[in-house]
Amino acid sequence: MNDHTVPNDLCPVGFIGLGIMGAPMVRNLLHAGVPVRVWARRLEQAEKLVADGATLAASFAELVGTVKVLFLNVSDTPDVESLMLDDGGILSHARAGLIVVDHSTIDPLRTRVIAERAREAGVAFVDAPVSGGERGAIDATLTLMLGGDEADIERVRPLLALIGSTLTRVGDSGAGQIAKACNQLIIGETLVAIGEAYGLAQAAGVDPARVREALLGGFAGSKVLEMHGKRLLEDNFVPGFMAHLHAKDMGIVADTAAHLGINLTGVDRVRAALSRALEHGHAYDDSTILARYCVPDR
Amino acid sequence: MNDHTVPNDLCPVGFIGLGIMGAPMVRNLLHAGVPVRVWARRLEQAEKLVADGATLAASFAELVGTVKVLFLNVSDTPDVESLMLDDGGILSHARAGLIVVDHSTIDPLRTRVIAERAREAGVAFVDAPVSGGERGAIDATLTLMLGGDEADIERVRPLLALIGSTLTRVGDSGAGQIAKACNQLIIGETLVAIGEAYGLAQAAGVDPARVREALLGGFAGSKVLEMHGKRLLEDNFVPGFMAHLHAKDMGIVADTAAHLGINLTGVDRVRAALSRALEHGHAYDDSTILARYCVPDR
Repeated sequence: MNDHTVPNDLCPVGFIGLGIMGAPMVRNLLHAGVPVRVWARRLEQAEKLVADGATLAASFAELVGTVKVLFLNVSDTPDVESLMLDDGGILSHARAGLIVVDHSTIDPLRTRVIAERAREAGVAFVDAPVSGGERGAIDATLTLMLGGDEADIERVRPLLALIGSTLTRVGDSGAGQIAKACNQLIIGETLVAIGEAYGLAQAAGVDPARVREALLGGFAGSKVLEMHGKRLLEDNFVPGFMAHLHAKDMGIVADTAAHLGINLTGVDRVRAALSRALEHGHAYDDSTILARYCVPDR
Repeated sequence: MNDHTVPNDLCPVGFIGLGIMGAPMVRNLLHAGVPVRVWARRLEQAEKLVADGATLAASFAELVGTVKVLFLNVSDTPDVESLMLDDGGILSHARAGLIVVDHSTIDPLRTRVIAERAREAGVAFVDAPVSGGERGAIDATLTLMLGGDEADIERVRPLLALIGSTLTRVGDSGAGQIAKACNQLIIGETLVAIGEAYGLAQAAGVDPARVREALLGGFAGSKVLEMHGKRLLEDNFVPGFMAHLHAKDMGIVADTAAHLGINLTGVDRVRAALSRALEHGHAYDDSTILARYCVPDR
């Protein structure tokens, strides 16, 4: 059953959080021959994956107690905190030596607390937020930003390599989440910049598509100008990555900056643009839409 | 003397503005066999190029009156306005059919006025601001953003191809300058974003170099993160493109937005960061330095 590249002492693995990102990650593990045990509050989410070869655990406790590596891919910080730290949570049921790999995008500083609590319980915790969207999850081309002990990350690397194509250990616990926060901030600010540039061009009667073309190969060129800049021109806001999730992530960036006592004015501008986009009904559109709302309403 | 690819009816050409960017552009024209006539208030600037094969004009009037295409590469809007429109300026001395190609970065809306006045005098005016810096000028790999009549641009294209490697007609007069304004705005805002991201990482005790590495291949990746992001980590502010020139360009962006009645808050943030950098003595450092000043002094 198991592929040569994944050591047997990492198997079976468990996976909690079987949504748009989690489900294709599970399938990529299964395709490589890794035995995956799943469990979900909404049983139908888990049953789809059973049809693909996953094993349904009898309960949450049984899942946690029988796996060597446990992947999480849930929505927000409180979800991970609850799963890990609650009475009856992961740390209550885990075997010593369990490695938890958290693909959720959550608060970096609270990640450090979770990792410390896990360590005290004999469980390793690796923060492993991803970028690359649903397409990257399906194609196993995700970028993984990793935080945690180097030895733990090296142990799970054969599994992570089945999920993503760029794996970078950024530093100790929380460092992966810091990198993800930087990622969301830079993408947001670049979108605002492109929104402003397109707005300037349009106000001057110049075609933004021609401006984009002139700029793409030069110093102003970026993945955002290439991909999102094209979406903007085509009014294509099919997600991709939804605006309400980007708003959630920018909240994490803002909280982190506040806790660290630094003032990042760009964060406020991206959040303001996302708020306006959400107020105008674009929560489930691609977050590229924020570029349309970067100029304050007048 | 003349290369096959440059039609004889474009020769000789003239060049005014023989500085860091202009001089290597002239050399690239000369190397291709194009006869170039030069003139400069500071005679020694012109004489260097005579040693490379340029012809020194007897006077400004003689230069303007004897060339088919006249390149300008000067500092700011008033310089181009004065050269073109003053009594005794280019329009006073030009032969009908002259094409002026302006590589300066100047105000897009005032460019339209200059081009209109030129047209009335039987002179074509093409705005052709560049990006790519001194290195691009030497290697003839500049990006040229072109505004003006399509026929005029097509006529001079064989000459422009000797100076740059990416030539894009963005639209009518001023459209090249609008693209350049967008270029400087996007680069400035991306630098601010990277400055903030690095600041967030450092405040959290995470190495910005590792964050950059994790982000480079993903959606947050850009030429600015690749090139300027590396400069920041290495404290390398050898220009490149000087901060005071970026400040001048951002003034153009701000004036243009104000004249068009649009409110671009990103412009203010980039200008504020550049102002702080200039106040701290960095006028002649590379404009990457602005990323160090994007967080307000407290």
